[in-house]
This record gives sequence, C-alpha cells and structure tokens, in this order.
Amino acid sequence: MSKESNKAKFLAEFPKLVGELKSILVGYGMPAEAVQWFEDSLNYNTPGGKLNRGLSVVDTYVILKGYKSVEDLPAEQYEKLAILGWCIELLQAYFLVADDMMDKSITRRGQPCWYRQKEVGEIAINDAFMLEASIYALLKSHFKKESYYIDLIELFHDVTLQTELGQLLDLITAPEDRVDLSKFSLEKHSFIVIFKTAYYSFYLPVALAMYVAGVCDPKDLEQAKSVLIPLGEYFQIQDDYLDCFGTPEQIGKIGTDIQDNKCSWVVNKALQLASPEQRKILDENYGKKDSQCEVACRKVFNDLKVDQYYIKYEENVAQELRKKISQIDESRGFKGEVLTAFLNKVYKRSK
Amino acid sequence: MSKESNKAKFLAEFPKLVGELKSILVGYGMPAEAVQWFEDSLNYNTPGGKLNRGLSVVDTYVILKGYKSVEDLPAEQYEKLAILGWCIELLQAYFLVADDMMDKSITRRGQPCWYRQKEVGEIAINDAFMLEASIYALLKSHFKKESYYIDLIELFHDVTLQTELGQLLDLITAPEDRVDLSKFSLEKHSFIVIFKTAYYSFYLPVALAMYVAGVCDPKDLEQAKSVLIPLGEYFQIQDDYLDCFGTPEQIGKIGTDIQDNKCSWVVNKALQLASPEQRKILDENYGKKDSQCEVACRKVFNDLKVDQYYIKYEENVAQELRKKISQIDESRGFKGEVLTAFLNKVYKRSK
Ligand SMILES: [Mg+2]
Ligand SMILES: [Mg+2]
Ligand SMILES: [Mg+2]
Ligand SMILES: [Mg+2]
Ligand SMILES: [Mg+2]
Ligand SMILES: [Mg+2]
Repeated sequence: MSKESNKAKFLAEFPKLVGELKSILVGYGMPAEAVQWFEDSLNYNTPGGKLNRGLSVVDTYVILKGYKSVEDLPAEQYEKLAILGWCIELLQAYFLVADDMMDKSITRRGQPCWYRQKEVGEIAINDAFMLEASIYALLKSHFKKESYYIDLIELFHDVTLQTELGQLLDLITAPEDRVDLSKFSLEKHSFIVIFKTAYYSFYLPVALAMYVAGVCDPKDLEQAKSVLIPLGEYFQIQDDYLDCFGTPEQIGKIGTDIQDNKCSWVVNKALQLASPEQRKILDENYGKKDSQCEVACRKVFNDLKVDQYYIKYEENVAQELRKKISQIDESRGFKGEVLTAFLNKVYKRSK
Repeated sequence: MSKESNKAKFLAEFPKLVGELKSILVGYGMPAEAVQWFEDSLNYNTPGGKLNRGLSVVDTYVILKGYKSVEDLPAEQYEKLAILGWCIELLQAYFLVADDMMDKSITRRGQPCWYRQKEVGEIAINDAFMLEASIYALLKSHFKKESYYIDLIELFHDVTLQTELGQLLDLITAPEDRVDLSKFSLEKHSFIVIFKTAYYSFYLPVALAMYVAGVCDPKDLEQAKSVLIPLGEYFQIQDDYLDCFGTPEQIGKIGTDIQDNKCSWVVNKALQLASPEQRKILDENYGKKDSQCEVACRKVFNDLKVDQYYIKYEENVAQELRKKISQIDESRGFKGEVLTAFLNKVYKRSK
C-alpha cells in the first residue's frame, strides 16, 4: 500500500469523526448555526497538513504487531488507531490555531490563518479550546471500555502540558515584537524544541500505538522516549537549518526565521561562536523585517560556518541514535524497527 | 465557623498547590524565568474572586456526610475537597482569561485583565491553556488511587466542553462588535446560560463532592442536575436582571450589559414583548457605547414592565425548585438539603 493510499484511507476516517462530534452538540439541543460553526472549525483546522503524526500511530502499530502493511490490519483495529491519529491532529490543530494568533501569523498551510477568517477573530480562542475538548470526547466514546483508557488520557494530558511549557519558553524567549538575543541560548533552544515539538510529534504517536498493542511496560515506553525525544530535537534542529540553508526549491518555501526573530538553532549556534563584532551585527540585524538585515545575519552565519557545525551534529546524532536503537531490549515485544522507521524519515531529509 | 474563616482556610490551600505545580516545571528543568511566569499567572488569575464555586465543594460534602461544620472535617479529607474546589477555580480562570480577550474587556476583579498586563498580550492564550492543564496535573497527583479518579476527569472534560459550547453560542449570537437583535431569543439565552454558567458553577461543585462522598449513583447525579441546572439558569437571569434594574449600591457596580450588547434575559424578554415601534428603538439603540442610547433602551424595558416579569419568573422558579427538592429521593444517601443550601444563596439575592 502506497504512502498516498495510506493517507487517503486515514483522511476518509475524519468525516465520520466530525459527524460524531457534531452529534454531541445536536444531542445537547445546540442551535444549528453554532453546530455549523464548530464543523467549519474542525474541517478548516484539522486536516490539510502532512498528517505525519496521525499516520505514525497506524504505522507504528503495524510494525509492533508484525503486519506486512496497513491494509492487513482488521478494519476495527484500523479504526481505533486512526481515531488516535486524528486525536493527535486535533491536538496539533488546538496548538496551531493559538500559535498563529500569538505569532500574529498570516497564513497556515497555504490559506489564511483561522483567526483571520471573516467573523472569526478572537473567537478562535474558544474554537481552539473546542478542538482540544474533541480529543477527550472521542477517547471517551471509543476507548472507555479499554483497560488502557486512563493511560491514553494521562498521556494526552502530560504531553499537552509539556507542549505548552515549550511554547511558553519560546514565547518569552523570542517575543514576536521585541528582539533580545541575550535571552537566547542553545540550552533554552533544546528545552523549547523538546517540549514544544518532540513530545507530541515523536513520542506521542508511538506511545499511543504501544498502548493499543499492549506493548506498554514502563521500561518499553522509556526505551521509546529515550530515542524519540532526541530524534525530535534533531528533527527541529534540521528544520531550523533548512529554513536558513536550504534552497527554496529544496524546502518548498522561503525561510523566514531570521526576519521572524525565531529562537532557531542556527542563531543560537552562531551566538555561541560569534566574536564581539559578529555579535554586534546580529544584535543590530536579527529579527528585523528587512531583507538587508537578513543578508547581514546570513553573512555572519556563513562566516562562522554554522552549516558545517550542523552537518557534524547530524552525523553524530544519527550515529548515536542508531547505536541506541541497536541496543533496544525487545524481550517484552517492543521493536527497535519502530524507531528506525522514524529515524529514516528524518535523516538527511530535505523537506 | 464563619463564612470568612471558611474562605481564609480555603485560600490557605492555594499556595501549596502553586508550589506543587511549580515543582513539575522545575522537575522538567524549565528555566527559572518561565517557572516564575507560570507562578505569576496562577496567582494573578486564580484567587481573587468570590470563590463560591470552590467553597461549595467543601460545603456540599459537609452536608452530605452530616458534619456540623467545615472545621469538623478530618484534615486529609478537607484537603482533597479543597483541591477539587481549586480545580474549579482553575477551570474558571482558564475561561475568564480567554473570555476577557474575546470580549476585549479592560478590568477583571478590580485589576487589569491578564492579557492587558505589560509583556503578556496574546501569550495569555497559552497561559489559559496552562491553567486548564493544571487541573489534570492536580487530579493525577491527588486522586489517581481513588476508584472515582476517572469519573472526576470525565466530569471536568464534559463540563469544559459544555461551557465552551455556551461560550460559542454567546460569541456568535452577541459578537462584541456587531449588534443584530434578530439573532437573539429567549431560547438561545436559555442555552447560553445553562451551558456557559450553570454546568460549571452549580452542577460541577456538587457532583465533585458527591463522588468524594461515594454518593454518586447515576440516579443521584441526575437528581442533583435536575435542580442545579435550572437553578443556575435562574441565577444568571437574576444576574441579568440586577445588571439592568439593580441600583449601583445594591449590586456593587454599574451595569453595562446594554452598552456591551449582551444577550441578556432583559433584552430577550423585551424583544418577545415589544411592539414594532419599541423593537425599532431597541434595534437602533441597544449595544451602543452611548449613555443616551442606553436611556432609550431602559425606557422600553420600563414601559414593557420587564422587571415585573422577572419578579413573577423568580417566584415561579423558586416555588418549582422547592417542590422538586421536597421530592428528592434520599434513599441512597443524597440529601435535598444540599440543593436547599444553593437555592437559599440565590433566592432574592441582591448581589
Ligand atoms: Mg508560529
Ligand atoms: Mg510560535
Ligand atoms: Mg521552521
Ligand atoms: Mg466577558
Ligand atoms: Mg464573553
Ligand atoms: Mg452580568
């Protein structure tokens, strides 16, 4: 089964979930225009991305249980996994609707951000809340009878708080409207990306599949985490690297981290290496909405050979992760292959 | 034990919970400035109100278990109930931080709204998220071993979604910047106030205490709900009435619902009764930040004797609720007195 047909199969589950969520509101006697509003928010904000996180739940389960491909999964089992996948996509939608407001972003996934839609505005805050609440409504209706129901709920709660902690540190370290590079550091960058990205994008999909598979001894969850968290950090460092050093053809967009005052790995590495003169250039030019300022920053990054440091970092981290994976204890049913599949998606990726 | 000392005892629990929540962040290695930010948000947004909802959890348990007063509760038991009380206050803080942003409000509880604090701004959205996440962190650390742990979680989830549904209908029926009275109706008003207020303010504290007391047969939860939801609706209708017809001395503030385009019971009742001429006056004057327009609306309300309709409504609903309470089945341990205590706090209240 091809990657595209896996995605199509996963997408086909979403309208059913929208129908189910709507029926809760209808059951409460909610007026039709409010039900419609909620449906519009679900459809605008949830699908439309790459769906990697949601698809990973299914893929991980397939590996754990030794199926040859996604189409070999019994329909009932597929549905359960797809629902958990959509719960991650709902969690991401919750974060993104809010992140776009906090970053004052203009577009998301090639369309105007939800809060910039006519008539929406600040109501988007409550819409974000409802995207999150949808997760627990779906877990309740589909998993209440499972022995691991409480584990799923606690996992979503924990990862939600972790992501919010990463978001908080990001917001106060790199505020959208005030540049202060003295607040930046590689240590903070590491905390931000692990908490803001790695937990929900890498650990969460695997842990969910592990619970459904019954391969969820705390030791095994810990084994998964010990690889997926540094892998998620690597993924984000790579994302930061590509934003600055990738060509637009390579990455499918034009990088904006420099002008956006992003607390990116690239600027943090440069700050660590910079001479007082180079630091001054960065202080004066980073985070300005001006292409000449951007050019000045890029020159410092190039002079410091930040790209070479990235290449060394990537080789080291990939080697370390491969070593860790080779030492995974598979005696309780966990499989290192789950982690290799993730690593292969990240290693030397160009977009 | 006086009402004031009950409140003081309850307030004394909060710093412990702040300490506990902070220790989660510290345990994750979060930089000090972010831990401080979170602490400031907890302290700014959570206490400071009347704390009626939180205190009701304790009071309800005292009645259910037949204690003479709050001070007779064993310390360990008191702490559990107070934690659940603070979880409701955290839920309310989550809603209010967001509501103030959506309503573009200026002050809350006599101080600037959190989002209007220097350096906060839109970051308040993530702060609201973290207030909500705090609820589940506290439930996990204090109730995980209880048989009713999952019931507490599901109750918070359900009530959170219900409140968000009420908020959504309110936001799209009475947007902060566009007046359209054709969207208003008494039916929508009823949905809005039941969902936005009654569930979390009236049903939630009682249901939480019932779980801790072990008096939580679905039939008893249903008995509680059948009184507390209409009582919560009555409370909000009274709030709307007082905003318009109460004197500033009586209600301790100056009513602003007319100028704020609030979907209040008063305007909805007037719309039901108005002649075409009166309707025209309301269409042209309601929701305008102009005291002459407010006077014109007040004249219509007075001409229609909306206050007399309120007084009739109050007598009817209080009588109905008293009748319902007298018919409560106490065979499984639930007590009508719990509901009487709530009704007595609302009936003919002036602020
Ligand atoms: Mg953003
Ligand atoms: Mg952001
Ligand atoms: Mg990026
Ligand atoms: Mg408000
Ligand atoms: Mg409001
Ligand atoms: Mg009011």
